[in-house]
Amino acid sequence: MAAPAEFLQYIDDKADAFIQRLADAVAIPSISGDAKHRQDVFKMADWLDAQLKAVGVETKLVDLGKHVMDGEELPLPPAILGKIGNDPSKKTVLIYGHFDVQPADKSDGWETDPFTLVIKEDGRLVGRGSSDDKGPILGWLNVLQYHHETGKPLPVNLKMCFEGMEESGSEGLDDLVQRESKPGGWFEGVDCVCISDNYWLNTRTPALTYGLRGLTYFKVTVSGPGRDLHSGVFGRTVHEPMTDLIHLMSKLVDTQGNIMIPGVDEMVPPADEQERAIYQSLDYSIADVEEAAGNKIAISSNKVEVLMGRMRNPSLSLHGIEGAFSGAGAKTVIPAKVSGKFSIRLVPPQTPEKVDPLVIAYLKQEFAKLNSKNELIIENLHGGKPWVADVNHWNFEAAKRATKAVYKQDPDLTREGGSIPVTLTFAESLGVNVLLLPMGRGDDGAHSTNEKLDRSNFIQGSKLLGTYLYEIGQVKA
Amino acid sequence: MAAPAEFLQYIDDKADAFIQRLADAVAIPSISGDAKHRQDVFKMADWLDAQLKAVGVETKLVDLGKHVMDGEELPLPPAILGKIGNDPSKKTVLIYGHFDVQPADKSDGWETDPFTLVIKEDGRLVGRGSSDDKGPILGWLNVLQYHHETGKPLPVNLKMCFEGMEESGSEGLDDLVQRESKPGGWFEGVDCVCISDNYWLNTRTPALTYGLRGLTYFKVTVSGPGRDLHSGVFGRTVHEPMTDLIHLMSKLVDTQGNIMIPGVDEMVPPADEQERAIYQSLDYSIADVEEAAGNKIAISSNKVEVLMGRMRNPSLSLHGIEGAFSGAGAKTVIPAKVSGKFSIRLVPPQTPEKVDPLVIAYLKQEFAKLNSKNELIIENLHGGKPWVADVNHWNFEAAKRATKAVYKQDPDLTREGGSIPVTLTFAESLGVNVLLLPMGRGDDGAHSTNEKLDRSNFIQGSKLLGTYLYEIGQVKA
Repeated sequence: MAAPAEFLQYIDDKADAFIQRLADAVAIPSISGDAKHRQDVFKMADWLDAQLKAVGVETKLVDLGKHVMDGEELPLPPAILGKIGNDPSKKTVLIYGHFDVQPADKSDGWETDPFTLVIKEDGRLVGRGSSDDKGPILGWLNVLQYHHETGKPLPVNLKMCFEGMEESGSEGLDDLVQRESKPGGWFEGVDCVCISDNYWLNTRTPALTYGLRGLTYFKVTVSGPGRDLHSGVFGRTVHEPMTDLIHLMSKLVDTQGNIMIPGVDEMVPPADEQERAIYQSLDYSIADVEEAAGNKIAISSNKVEVLMGRMRNPSLSLHGIEGAFSGAGAKTVIPAKVSGKFSIRLVPPQTPEKVDPLVIAYLKQEFAKLNSKNELIIENLHGGKPWVADVNHWNFEAAKRATKAVYKQDPDLTREGGSIPVTLTFAESLGVNVLLLPMGRGDDGAHSTNEKLDRSNFIQGSKLLGTYLYEIGQVKA
Repeated sequence: MAAPAEFLQYIDDKADAFIQRLADAVAIPSISGDAKHRQDVFKMADWLDAQLKAVGVETKLVDLGKHVMDGEELPLPPAILGKIGNDPSKKTVLIYGHFDVQPADKSDGWETDPFTLVIKEDGRLVGRGSSDDKGPILGWLNVLQYHHETGKPLPVNLKMCFEGMEESGSEGLDDLVQRESKPGGWFEGVDCVCISDNYWLNTRTPALTYGLRGLTYFKVTVSGPGRDLHSGVFGRTVHEPMTDLIHLMSKLVDTQGNIMIPGVDEMVPPADEQERAIYQSLDYSIADVEEAAGNKIAISSNKVEVLMGRMRNPSLSLHGIEGAFSGAGAKTVIPAKVSGKFSIRLVPPQTPEKVDPLVIAYLKQEFAKLNSKNELIIENLHGGKPWVADVNHWNFEAAKRATKAVYKQDPDLTREGGSIPVTLTFAESLGVNVLLLPMGRGDDGAHSTNEKLDRSNFIQGSKLLGTYLYEIGQVKA
């Protein structure tokens, strides 16, 4: 059955209380990346655990051990596993969220205290974590509260995985997910996954996200002189590492974004007309991209090319150089050892395993052409595979119907340029379809100042999450 | 007449006393670049003034005003003008030196306290300023002391200019030199200039230096995004400033040192066989260059090409990038605004006025080819003309004869890759020949730790300075 009208009404009726609960959550400064706030992440775990129990969820807090941050050994906040319902005739949905937040300080430029939720007249709920990712977690709580209070059974069995280290590399989570995905583990029987931790493309159109780019990050070091040299004394007498490195870096990507490493762009099949139509239909324009970038610098005047550049094509960015003169002013140094940093965003079928050898061979070949006596060292700093899900899977179909029901419009089907590594861990460990179902808008400013979640996104988004579960409940087994 | 044997003997006899005087000078930490030591520079000026007066020099301390350093207004140490002798039948020689020193601290890696002159068993006199430039100034004092004590007249009239801000940009000196070079000024009647403030090429062969390269320094900024962007979200959707800048910087100099800006290398006439022979004959090898650079990275296996690269050809060095990611680790940023820094060492007939327009036009042209919507800004941070003197002038001929007399070998005739701006100021203000007559060796470590002057260079060098004056005295008017 579709989501009952009573459920939708309940969410509307309780809106103020739900917003108050969001304010309570925002008030706990659960910054995982700041040792001073580590106890607040634990406090947040306890708060969430209590909320889950209050709406009938069976929970387990899992100790993830310790880690070292900024030279200090710290206990990792627990992951919270939850479950409710165990009806073999129903689908089992695993939901994920994180209860830690990015750092925030009034002095960074916040208009108000970041840990006091402020309700603006235009409907914005401003506070750190409002959108990333406390709002979405509380959306699930809102859905559960309805069923708990009314005694109505959920249309699905739910499993839950909430972590407190997402903003700091999800330490310990991969091992936990892999362990609990095995037979007898907490996630046994999961049929699909739903993650609400990203954003609409724009401020108008709900979105379902079915792809994320992977990454491979390189550090390329050229060294030669025994120490930094004076350019007056040594200019034009020795091979200068900076000259070599700049030439090498200029061979990686052209100014139109094409990757110059043979075989890398070519590994990705061109989009056919059907796929191009997806990007053409997205409610996102070049003007939107340029507004987000802060200037009219889109790499193409073709909307499809620009959106595919972000979502379905690989990209190579040059981030900087370590070891060169980087200060203000004029210094006439020949740096002895310089390291160029660049990364490639990967899309299927690219993986670091397939792309890295091409990059390394090409760098060596191009360096050899330079005829330099300096030394080249190539290091791969880290990498991760891309992820793309089947948008025709019943998990996505349910989300599409739910979106249409709540928002009266079809969702944008998006792929994201960045990475959410846990997505791939769930997909690979469980072997089931994973859906990214965002609650917030593209301008929420998740890692920025004045982070917000719009009231309508919180309330309609809570309805969406519940409706999605009802739509899953209608899927034939 | 040649330098009297009695003079040479006197220098040998007084060697220990001269070294003690050098120790007294080194003991005053006259660091011009450190506000805490500014009073020591004044103290050093008073010490030198007293020494000069004691050997019969008429002096004048010139107040050069104030300046701001590190946000603090400080009085500039005085320049010391000196004169001795006023015989119209003799040549008038202007000598220059500086009594301030580079910073030095034991913790930088000095084996001994930098401001305590240590006499090593191998003859090294180790201490800050021993070679740069207190040793050479005291060499002149040694010569003057002989004539003062014996009552013998100097073979020339001497004018002197000693400053205390050389290591900090020679603040105020240009104005003073230009003023005193005018009719009625302190330097009226000067026939030639001798500056002892540089080094032999190697550790074996005395040198005369007749050229210095000039410089023009550029900052090239590419900007576009309104703020730093996330490469996952924006990679391949916008023109990235780093990509543009790296391409631009790769068009400036090739990995063999050739300047790629049309017209810049071409402005310098190629060396003919006679000039190449000068470099071939220098007692300096590729092995010496590579030892100084700390690795076998000479840009050519041809000695003449390598030495001309340093001395008589222009060079372009890429120093670094401001605004890009320059830290350790892996950051996936697209920097919003990046500034490449590079400089060109200039040789005659190049000047900043002739070269800068070529650089600017080329940068604009190459940037246009990139088809980027980002913005380019080109700034020239500073510049200075090159200097080359006539090595056949009687001033140089006198120095050659003096070198042969004292060291029993012909000097290397060298040009330096770096700049000593006051050289050009003297040459242009006075319109006379300027000679650089180094006292120390190529491994003295002037701006480094454990700076030293070899005892033999101090003593033989003092003889050289005196003998040079006697050789000038023999020049026909």
